[in-house]
Amino acid sequence: MRHYHGGKPLMAFDEALQRLLDATQPIDRTECVPLTGCVDRVLAKPVVAPFDVPPFDRATMDGYAVRASDIAKASAENPTTLKVVGAIYAGDAPPSWAIEAGTCAQIATGAPLPLGADCVVPFEDTQRDGELVRVLKAHPVGANITPRGLDVRSGTVVLNEGTLLTPAKVGVLAALGFDHACVYAKPRIAILPTGNEVARPGTPLRNGQIYDTNTYTVAALAQRHGCEPLTMEIVPDEEEALRRALREALEGADCVVFSAGSAVGERDLLPKLLGERGKVLFHGLAVRPGRPTLAAVVDGKLVVNLPGFPTSCLMMALVLLVPVWRKMARLPRWQPPTIQATLTHEVRSPEGLRQFLTVRLKNWDEGRGARGEEIIAESAYKESGTITSLSDADGFIVIPEEVTHLPAGTPVAVTPLD
Amino acid sequence: MRHYHGGKPLMAFDEALQRLLDATQPIDRTECVPLTGCVDRVLAKPVVAPFDVPPFDRATMDGYAVRASDIAKASAENPTTLKVVGAIYAGDAPPSWAIEAGTCAQIATGAPLPLGADCVVPFEDTQRDGELVRVLKAHPVGANITPRGLDVRSGTVVLNEGTLLTPAKVGVLAALGFDHACVYAKPRIAILPTGNEVARPGTPLRNGQIYDTNTYTVAALAQRHGCEPLTMEIVPDEEEALRRALREALEGADCVVFSAGSAVGERDLLPKLLGERGKVLFHGLAVRPGRPTLAAVVDGKLVVNLPGFPTSCLMMALVLLVPVWRKMARLPRWQPPTIQATLTHEVRSPEGLRQFLTVRLKNWDEGRGARGEEIIAESAYKESGTITSLSDADGFIVIPEEVTHLPAGTPVAVTPLD
Repeated sequence: MRHYHGGKPLMAFDEALQRLLDATQPIDRTECVPLTGCVDRVLAKPVVAPFDVPPFDRATMDGYAVRASDIAKASAENPTTLKVVGAIYAGDAPPSWAIEAGTCAQIATGAPLPLGADCVVPFEDTQRDGELVRVLKAHPVGANITPRGLDVRSGTVVLNEGTLLTPAKVGVLAALGFDHACVYAKPRIAILPTGNEVARPGTPLRNGQIYDTNTYTVAALAQRHGCEPLTMEIVPDEEEALRRALREALEGADCVVFSAGSAVGERDLLPKLLGERGKVLFHGLAVRPGRPTLAAVVDGKLVVNLPGFPTSCLMMALVLLVPVWRKMARLPRWQPPTIQATLTHEVRSPEGLRQFLTVRLKNWDEGRGARGEEIIAESAYKESGTITSLSDADGFIVIPEEVTHLPAGTPVAVTPLD
Repeated sequence: MRHYHGGKPLMAFDEALQRLLDATQPIDRTECVPLTGCVDRVLAKPVVAPFDVPPFDRATMDGYAVRASDIAKASAENPTTLKVVGAIYAGDAPPSWAIEAGTCAQIATGAPLPLGADCVVPFEDTQRDGELVRVLKAHPVGANITPRGLDVRSGTVVLNEGTLLTPAKVGVLAALGFDHACVYAKPRIAILPTGNEVARPGTPLRNGQIYDTNTYTVAALAQRHGCEPLTMEIVPDEEEALRRALREALEGADCVVFSAGSAVGERDLLPKLLGERGKVLFHGLAVRPGRPTLAAVVDGKLVVNLPGFPTSCLMMALVLLVPVWRKMARLPRWQPPTIQATLTHEVRSPEGLRQFLTVRLKNWDEGRGARGEEIIAESAYKESGTITSLSDADGFIVIPEEVTHLPAGTPVAVTPLD
């Protein structure tokens, strides 16, 4: 069955997403951020070790730095006695003096090995007696030492360009002495609510108005997926205002997201404007909700008009824009684990449309998983315009285009809506 | 087999974690944050709807607002003719005039219903002719209208205290007109590197020194789990310096994390200091790596001394502190999905110790999952002190206390290290 929007056939979801991804360029802008603010950012340059790590031969045990040849015959029955000529602690520079035959130095874990020594005998294999120490066990050359450069050799590429900076990778930068990281900038997403009936939260609501919801859901989602949202003024349903708002948004942003008001006029104004200013990728999707979604490329940048209804808007942002934003931000694909549940009632879905149905879960605790019993999914859908279809939902299920009926008891995979 | 640390038996991991959790208080401090900065925060007060949503009866279709009784007999063969007395757009206030019998008003989706009207006839069921419109189909009372308060009734608790503000829940706050949210403060985690051999990244490295890594890995992890890291000055291995640093950290933080240097002295200084100032929960864990981990409660706050080696430190932070921090921050438990892989070589593990082994994965793409073939896990462990044990790792496996040998080919569940 074919479906239409404004007289034109709807585009299949998969093709629409592919067109969006094909039109998406990973960001090239870079910036330098302090190490305490670079987790979850993406490296824009390879990281090359500027020195050997560790930068010196160091002890891995507390004990005595010795020449291995001196203690080759040491045993509990036949200890080798050495003269202790000094002590070296972690943080000390390697001493100017050397370990000569028959001598040794007390050494702490992490301390640099003195010249001449090639092995560390742990305390438990020794007996101290004033300036002398008896070694009770032989140890080979290199024992209990991390040689300089074992971990990383100077000049080695330790992290590649494009690496996602997890806490562990941030640690690598620190270990190499970097206090900043050169990372890709976060893509800037301009978010423009449109419609004469839309009011900014925190301002009084005039009669006939509703509050702008979509700016905040879309901004929160963009933040979560490596982007920087730019919240813009509400745009009235007038051609000149839309034209000006689009121009300003394109100046500062890498991607522009309008959320439609529910007025008639603007539905015609924005497609017309985007058609004039750039290339329309699609207008009208074979999905529910989200049918009126529109996307275009203007001045080389993606411009998307999401539906005005809060649930439709957030759902389309989640399934269409998150993949696009993550490609822009050079983040790995987002694949949240799904929750296996059983549908508690039947669901009908129109043939030829892909439906994204918000559901509530029972016998399921966030962060804990199942509570012993079978997890139950039931529709959280109330009406397109409601916010409770969102606030009551734990996740959503995807009903493919060819499926028209899910009987009660159908096992479903629920994607968490968080 | 029992293991010892400093002559005392080691504590089992599960008991240590339980002691930490038992000593952890969820945070009570609250703060007010703007709506654009509240995603992933936790509501500190229930959200009550201050008005009905929608705040007026509104049209859900473009068409004509009519009295249902006027068009009860309308059909294509026998249209009912009504006089159009006005037009109402989204954002208009409800008009001062009313729909009398025999009249109607053009209305846009989202616009408020005029007085007297109780139903909306969509355009496709009408024919316009100047000031008149012919209605071709009957519609019942309430058709194509969202009645005031259908979504949320004024006075209803819409979001409970303790709710995690996902993008959808942020939208609920916006729809109710709130431009700020009252949320729990982020727990402040003071992070103090100790050791005379430790230098701050970005400063020159003196001979015998290494760069502080643990501040940055622990801070990044804390940020990811809803906390605010406070990075502190490096503390030298001196009793008075440690005492002063602890006092200052306890003043500003909800939880204090020392990372040990590798010097001998401080291993004794901190346990002594914490024993004097508070109650030690454990010192010495039956784990690998992380054996010297120490935890105490001082002035009602958790103070933890993590091992100095970067891999040990991050691993202990991940498995011991993340659950604690999330409880403090009132976040749901963290259960990252594991990756099923096959161990490529045998691994031995000491009886009685729980081992956390970092591994590299093959045939696995972050964000894409398996690449067709079987996913292979191989040890990324090089040596305790190395950072490449971390930078080369994709995740870790947990080897239980009673398991001493995993043969090559063992299926393992890998927790991603990201």
